[in-house]
Amino acid sequence: MARPVTLFSGQWADLPFEKFCEKAKSFGYEGVELACCGDHLDLEKAAGDPQYIEDRKTILKNHDLKIIAIGTQLIGRCIGEADPRLNPSAPSNIAGKPEEIRKWAVHQMKLAAAAAKNLGVKIVTGTMGSPIWTDWYSSANEQTIAGAFKQIIDIWSPIFDEFDKHGIKFALEVQPAEIAFDYYTAERLLKEFKNRKTLGFNFNPAHLIWQGILPHLFIRDFSSKIVHVCMKDAGVTLDGRAGLLGSYFAAGDVKRGWNFRSPGHGDIDFESIIRELNAVNYKGALSVEWEDFGMNRELGAKEACIFVKGINFSPLNTASDSGKAE
Amino acid sequence: MARPVTLFSGQWADLPFEKFCEKAKSFGYEGVELACCGDHLDLEKAAGDPQYIEDRKTILKNHDLKIIAIGTQLIGRCIGEADPRLNPSAPSNIAGKPEEIRKWAVHQMKLAAAAAKNLGVKIVTGTMGSPIWTDWYSSANEQTIAGAFKQIIDIWSPIFDEFDKHGIKFALEVQPAEIAFDYYTAERLLKEFKNRKTLGFNFNPAHLIWQGILPHLFIRDFSSKIVHVCMKDAGVTLDGRAGLLGSYFAAGDVKRGWNFRSPGHGDIDFESIIRELNAVNYKGALSVEWEDFGMNRELGAKEACIFVKGINFSPLNTASDSGKAE
Amino acid sequence: MARPVTLFSGQWADLPFEKFCEKAKSFGYEGVELACCGDHLDLEKAAGDPQYIEDRKTILKNHDLKIIAIGTQLIGRCIGEADPRLNPSAPSNIAGKPEEIRKWAVHQMKLAAAAAKNLGVKIVTGTMGSPIWTDWYSSANEQTIAGAFKQIIDIWSPIFDEFDKHGIKFALEVQPAEIAFDYYTAERLLKEFKNRKTLGFNFNPAHLIWQGILPHLFIRDFSSKIVHVCMKDAGVTLDGRAGLLGSYFAAGDVKRGWNFRSPGHGDIDFESIIRELNAVNYKGALSVEWEDFGMNRELGAKEACIFVKGINFSPLNTASDSGKAE
Amino acid sequence: MARPVTLFSGQWADLPFEKFCEKAKSFGYEGVELACCGDHLDLEKAAGDPQYIEDRKTILKNHDLKIIAIGTQLIGRCIGEADPRLNPSAPSNIAGKPEEIRKWAVHQMKLAAAAAKNLGVKIVTGTMGSPIWTDWYSSANEQTIAGAFKQIIDIWSPIFDEFDKHGIKFALEVQPAEIAFDYYTAERLLKEFKNRKTLGFNFNPAHLIWQGILPHLFIRDFSSKIVHVCMKDAGVTLDGRAGLLGSYFAAGDVKRGWNFRSPGHGDIDFESIIRELNAVNYKGALSVEWEDFGMNRELGAKEACIFVKGINFSPLNTASDSGKAE
Amino acid sequence: MARPVTLFSGQWADLPFEKFCEKAKSFGYEGVELACCGDHLDLEKAAGDPQYIEDRKTILKNHDLKIIAIGTQLIGRCIGEADPRLNPSAPSNIAGKPEEIRKWAVHQMKLAAAAAKNLGVKIVTGTMGSPIWTDWYSSANEQTIAGAFKQIIDIWSPIFDEFDKHGIKFALEVQPAEIAFDYYTAERLLKEFKNRKTLGFNFNPAHLIWQGILPHLFIRDFSSKIVHVCMKDAGVTLDGRAGLLGSYFAAGDVKRGWNFRSPGHGDIDFESIIRELNAVNYKGALSVEWEDFGMNRELGAKEACIFVKGINFSPLNTASDSGKAE
Amino acid sequence: MARPVTLFSGQWADLPFEKFCEKAKSFGYEGVELACCGDHLDLEKAAGDPQYIEDRKTILKNHDLKIIAIGTQLIGRCIGEADPRLNPSAPSNIAGKPEEIRKWAVHQMKLAAAAAKNLGVKIVTGTMGSPIWTDWYSSANEQTIAGAFKQIIDIWSPIFDEFDKHGIKFALEVQPAEIAFDYYTAERLLKEFKNRKTLGFNFNPAHLIWQGILPHLFIRDFSSKIVHVCMKDAGVTLDGRAGLLGSYFAAGDVKRGWNFRSPGHGDIDFESIIRELNAVNYKGALSVEWEDFGMNRELGAKEACIFVKGINFSPLNTASDSGKAE
Repeated sequence: MARPVTLFSGQWADLPFEKFCEKAKSFGYEGVELACCGDHLDLEKAAGDPQYIEDRKTILKNHDLKIIAIGTQLIGRCIGEADPRLNPSAPSNIAGKPEEIRKWAVHQMKLAAAAAKNLGVKIVTGTMGSPIWTDWYSSANEQTIAGAFKQIIDIWSPIFDEFDKHGIKFALEVQPAEIAFDYYTAERLLKEFKNRKTLGFNFNPAHLIWQGILPHLFIRDFSSKIVHVCMKDAGVTLDGRAGLLGSYFAAGDVKRGWNFRSPGHGDIDFESIIRELNAVNYKGALSVEWEDFGMNRELGAKEACIFVKGINFSPLNTASDSGKAE
Repeated sequence: MARPVTLFSGQWADLPFEKFCEKAKSFGYEGVELACCGDHLDLEKAAGDPQYIEDRKTILKNHDLKIIAIGTQLIGRCIGEADPRLNPSAPSNIAGKPEEIRKWAVHQMKLAAAAAKNLGVKIVTGTMGSPIWTDWYSSANEQTIAGAFKQIIDIWSPIFDEFDKHGIKFALEVQPAEIAFDYYTAERLLKEFKNRKTLGFNFNPAHLIWQGILPHLFIRDFSSKIVHVCMKDAGVTLDGRAGLLGSYFAAGDVKRGWNFRSPGHGDIDFESIIRELNAVNYKGALSVEWEDFGMNRELGAKEACIFVKGINFSPLNTASDSGKAE
Repeated sequence: MARPVTLFSGQWADLPFEKFCEKAKSFGYEGVELACCGDHLDLEKAAGDPQYIEDRKTILKNHDLKIIAIGTQLIGRCIGEADPRLNPSAPSNIAGKPEEIRKWAVHQMKLAAAAAKNLGVKIVTGTMGSPIWTDWYSSANEQTIAGAFKQIIDIWSPIFDEFDKHGIKFALEVQPAEIAFDYYTAERLLKEFKNRKTLGFNFNPAHLIWQGILPHLFIRDFSSKIVHVCMKDAGVTLDGRAGLLGSYFAAGDVKRGWNFRSPGHGDIDFESIIRELNAVNYKGALSVEWEDFGMNRELGAKEACIFVKGINFSPLNTASDSGKAE
Repeated sequence: MARPVTLFSGQWADLPFEKFCEKAKSFGYEGVELACCGDHLDLEKAAGDPQYIEDRKTILKNHDLKIIAIGTQLIGRCIGEADPRLNPSAPSNIAGKPEEIRKWAVHQMKLAAAAAKNLGVKIVTGTMGSPIWTDWYSSANEQTIAGAFKQIIDIWSPIFDEFDKHGIKFALEVQPAEIAFDYYTAERLLKEFKNRKTLGFNFNPAHLIWQGILPHLFIRDFSSKIVHVCMKDAGVTLDGRAGLLGSYFAAGDVKRGWNFRSPGHGDIDFESIIRELNAVNYKGALSVEWEDFGMNRELGAKEACIFVKGINFSPLNTASDSGKAE
Repeated sequence: MARPVTLFSGQWADLPFEKFCEKAKSFGYEGVELACCGDHLDLEKAAGDPQYIEDRKTILKNHDLKIIAIGTQLIGRCIGEADPRLNPSAPSNIAGKPEEIRKWAVHQMKLAAAAAKNLGVKIVTGTMGSPIWTDWYSSANEQTIAGAFKQIIDIWSPIFDEFDKHGIKFALEVQPAEIAFDYYTAERLLKEFKNRKTLGFNFNPAHLIWQGILPHLFIRDFSSKIVHVCMKDAGVTLDGRAGLLGSYFAAGDVKRGWNFRSPGHGDIDFESIIRELNAVNYKGALSVEWEDFGMNRELGAKEACIFVKGINFSPLNTASDSGKAE
Repeated sequence: MARPVTLFSGQWADLPFEKFCEKAKSFGYEGVELACCGDHLDLEKAAGDPQYIEDRKTILKNHDLKIIAIGTQLIGRCIGEADPRLNPSAPSNIAGKPEEIRKWAVHQMKLAAAAAKNLGVKIVTGTMGSPIWTDWYSSANEQTIAGAFKQIIDIWSPIFDEFDKHGIKFALEVQPAEIAFDYYTAERLLKEFKNRKTLGFNFNPAHLIWQGILPHLFIRDFSSKIVHVCMKDAGVTLDGRAGLLGSYFAAGDVKRGWNFRSPGHGDIDFESIIRELNAVNYKGALSVEWEDFGMNRELGAKEACIFVKGINFSPLNTASDSGKAE
């Protein structure tokens, strides 16, 4: 199908950009979603230095890879909340200064819009953070919740203005630790933003399934907001003792109640997801965010590419369909 | 059976103690678990004022009610962590001063041991708090986790010394926001405390079921540590859109992925729980913590008493069994 | 709770009205939903003869029974379609004359509005028929479907005008053979009628469950339209050979894939239904339409009354709740 | 309904017969199925001593109890196989002599027919044994299997002749260790016996459910052969480690994959069973064989009686139905 | 295995016959089931014109394709019922004249037998229609049902005589709108036809699964009647709101409760089906009737061929098995 | 991954050893587990005749196959019990002499240790037999059970001494008819042997799944004892009538409640098994014991090799992982 199968670079930041491109190509991918990690993408340069852009494009071209989005997962979450846990996401010189980190992150996100435009992509994927994430269990009162949503809108609206200026959409990955972490909080976020066009979703089913949500219904109900798709699987492995909150076990531990998995190795119903994507006429990338702490990375990324291409069927009424067009 | 069916007073703190006793009796309960809320129990007085103890006992006797435990749920959690959310649990004059709150709570817990002894009960139920609860999703590293457990041990050990002095056991309610919130964290807590006898569990299946854990296996594996049983139900109501993390909806909202329920109205397998309790020879109380935001409280508490008595069957080999004893 | 538990008279039309009332009372019901069958209710008289109304009321009063709705199930379906199968519903002198039957039925439905007003009830329950029911499998084209909905609107709108005149609501029972037979056809019917206030639903979960629909979601999504509730159960008994379309077996045959059942004997989740009804603040009747071809009728109707009263709990915040009001 | 609810005496053989009757009555039972254990029933005397019969009848009459069948479970199984395990079933003087035991058992079974007639019952429930039970896993060849069935027919046919003489039916309890231990072996046994009328089944769902068989289908398919019904429940409690073959754990151990349970405490779908019994017009007894190693016997037997009476509803078309008979 | 994997031409009638053959071959199929649609097969000519037969055979031979059956799905259904919906199946000059259509269809079916013989195939697949299909929900009385079966026998028997004359079997596709639409109606049809050898089944699991029937049991129980196998999948996609009766949504709509699917993309257990086919020694074709309104047709048909070949394993004891034959 | 995929020779004993090797190689296997059947392996010669060893090695080398274990399944079971069923496992001259057979088997097992050493393998897979297998249903008393375990220890300890002398481990296949046939009996056997290092398990999930046990938990809990892995699948095919005890049907019969299956064709969750094997760092062989009575053997063995290689992924942290090593 026309939808390209791409690889997100975030889990490969230990490799130099060119090495990553070489591998992505060898695994079979048609393009990449570029993370702002390692040496993969410097937003400052990408927003302002034409030569840097030229170099990135050359490397991609040399490996016959498209770029389909910029990923800012580690930056955006520093905006919605101020927490020492976020230090590792920010430059070391501002570690321990939450408000400095927040300012830095706001600035980076504005650069991301320009960088995206320069690189010729329409989508920046990422996170927004949340001032009330830690209240999810304690049933915060409505006033607190409304205040938190307002805070998000206030701080993100100027960033979105910058996105609009460059014609870029922000694709939020709905997940725990975010203001929108499930179906209904995603619905509320859209409403609070009065359905602002700048804001879409980076659909990632792996964050929904272990919460008990059927991912394909998310696509159906928020169809116009699905601007990017992250192909990630998760295995839910309850056995009577394992718990969904993870028991503080390390990622990949077989005793956890769920774990991220290489696509096709978990419980996600990709068949239904593809059918919904076809139904809403999604033509963007299927971007593999490969993360599976129980599997060899290179083997997995290669296998994942084959799996995603295999499931990436087009709907009945495409141009390539049947002999009718002859 | 010999196991008394009792009512926890925490959800009735809006009523004066005597009124609560009157109702508990009229609902059919044989005793109460007394919460340190409203005017139900003042730990300062209960630890040091013989007349206060006499008055409480008289009121209970007047209503033909046993007291089987003291409940300190709102106090203990201020010890393990220091967070503005805990202000409501502490006296208003120290609101906003986390370390003051912590000190106050440590003091209160020490009083609880003496109060329990004075009231003639062997069990104080409650919470411990957690320095790393908010890290459950972010996969904190092992060093951080180990540090948090150590912190809990350091601060709670002197309290447990006081418990030992009075021959009282502390029954921790394993639940989110606690250092031990599921099966494996409970297992680790026991290990970190080197199986200290002072520490047992207040078994509450409602916190386990929506995490995907089979509650009766918790009893089986931690059999010697089940010193109190909280009869509370929960309904897991996934429908494709509802999420287990609750979407910030208010308790009781039908769109949440789960809700606490009056016993018998949810998904807890009490049949298996009773059989495990029989197997481990548990002879303590079955204490109803009635909380169901979708049901009339008085109707519910009455019905719950009938339900729990009905399911409270004794094992085969009890004295009252068969004609063999004749 | 304030919601009365009532008995629908349709399945008892072999008994004279007074006998039926005597039995309903003896079974424990608080009121009745009166069917236009047997001698139970003559719409012509009820619409125009004050003495007839007086007599009905006296009989009801003598048995201490409320009347909470009129049921017109066998009449309405003659309006939406013209089919020889409907002969038995109409007076014998017009049998075989579909258009005559249709006219008769339209007239009867208009009388029903006046009759309801005279009897002091606000609800007429019933059916509407469908010009395209038999097309459900053959995937009729959109034009045909739209035409059928239009036909229903054209013929029913004047009837609804009459209902409006008397301040009566029509409560449609969504079920096979109706224009609205499942969730989405119900949604479309409301839309086609531009949400006309006259039209509501007589919620009957037994028609939905074997179609694979979760009945309580119907209440949630059409909350403002739930004006009457029919308590009927169904058992889905698939065993590898039984089929959901019934194999032409007689009702009650154990080899069918599903059968209607006395409430509590089937697979309906009434717990969730009551919680949704509480959530949408439904205060109308819970009307038992007793139909179970595998069970003694009198035993069943008595047991059903106990069952429904038992599950009919009120929500947390009612006037009768807690000691707060004291 | 007309079907009497009775108690099987086998699990109460520690009590003298009269004491057992007293208890059965006090629990609410309408009759008994008498086991040849303890002092409950001596077949020798019952077959030949009119005074003995008179005494038994008097005791039953004094407690207002019917007798509905004789149970020979421990005798019959000594016929089909010769194994040291069967010693406890036989008189001590022939222990260790399998062929002596077999002869004794054949003789006892013949007496049972006469005893039944003398006591005025039509049914003898029991077992037949099996020469090839231990081969169930090793996939014996067809010749061996056919030989075993022939052996059963050869040895049981003369016993059945005796049954025919007295007009008594033998009701085999299909269960492990028997020649017919599941659905298909039961079907084969009937076929091998050429559908001999003497042979029927004592339907016991508890032996079928943990083998993965739906008990109600057994009734449907062998409808004419259901001559007695044993109300016994079983809980299947798989948890990932428990096994269906029982791990040599003692009966009642919570770690087993299944256990017998008091009716209503297990996984048997009695609703479907009663509907099938109604469909095949079964009018015999519902005989409770109370066995639950996790529950107090007296409490359980009493509760079981209430449970079985509650579920024992009659079909639609009985004489007592509706007002039609008036 | 020896069973050929073939493609049914009905869904490709928009293509000229030769074009279809070209594609079928390129997709990997070994043969075709020829539908009487488009220019694929003219029964009149095939029954009487040797040159036409020769031409068809040449085209097939040119593409190295077998022909394994003739498909008459759109014709037969005009025989069992007379309904305006059937107009599109018949020649336009008799549209609107149900009895004319019926006569035409009877004639065509007789020609089909001769055509089959001429083409060298043994099987004509198809439908029979039903005089009582629309009564499936309304529980028609036994007299009506018996009458309908008789009507089918009366009108089809002469057609079957013609089939016998040519040594052809008619393979009925059990599905909604047919007299035999599920397991038990199929069983009854066989019985009403006194097991006439002419009548067999074109087994199609996709019509059974969403009715709740396990398709492989159909093969087991009607083993001697499985004369043709249609490989078609269906996805059952209930989500609480979707209904099994389809809500008048167009085929393929993701909101329907089920949809036809390309083999391997739905919920059919083909593993069990192949094992049953092996057990009953079915050696006919596995004929793919490719219909999936959510997938590209050419891609799907190609993929389906690979899937079916992959699952088409032969049983243990075939000639090609093991080294024993050496 | 480093784990070799091998073929067990037991199901191919009809072929000469060299022929078997030729086929194993042609199917894609990297090595073999050699059974003492047919001419595959003569323990007497392998233990004492260097030339025989040389010949075996040459044949293996000629086909580029490793040998990874010796399989003694038919020998060991003659040790734990003395039963006429075991005759076929022993030399014909001692048939019918259980104690002779036992002695022969003990001798053979001792030879196996030497043979293994000579062949250069570290593992002998096999069975131990059981003196109380036939008591699994009858709930033998604890004394009998303890006696049986003691008997096993007494007779096997000298054999294990011989194993220790040669540095060989015995890998028991936990399965019915063995002293350890499920999770808890396996646990007990280890305990009774005081965790003797000589004794490990030949993990075979196909014996566990139909008993209701989750095979991957067996690996997790007995991690240090998993010394060999047998890749065998089983399909559990309950349909309401099929029973888990097999009804005396021949292996492969579709009416049985379960059957062995070619890997990937059954219900075993190999994904979870591989993840557990990775977690416990299992580096031994994945040995296919191909047995599927519903599938062509050669086709199946070839397909199984592909399947097992496909699922045999290595964990995240292996040497071959990522670009980090570069």
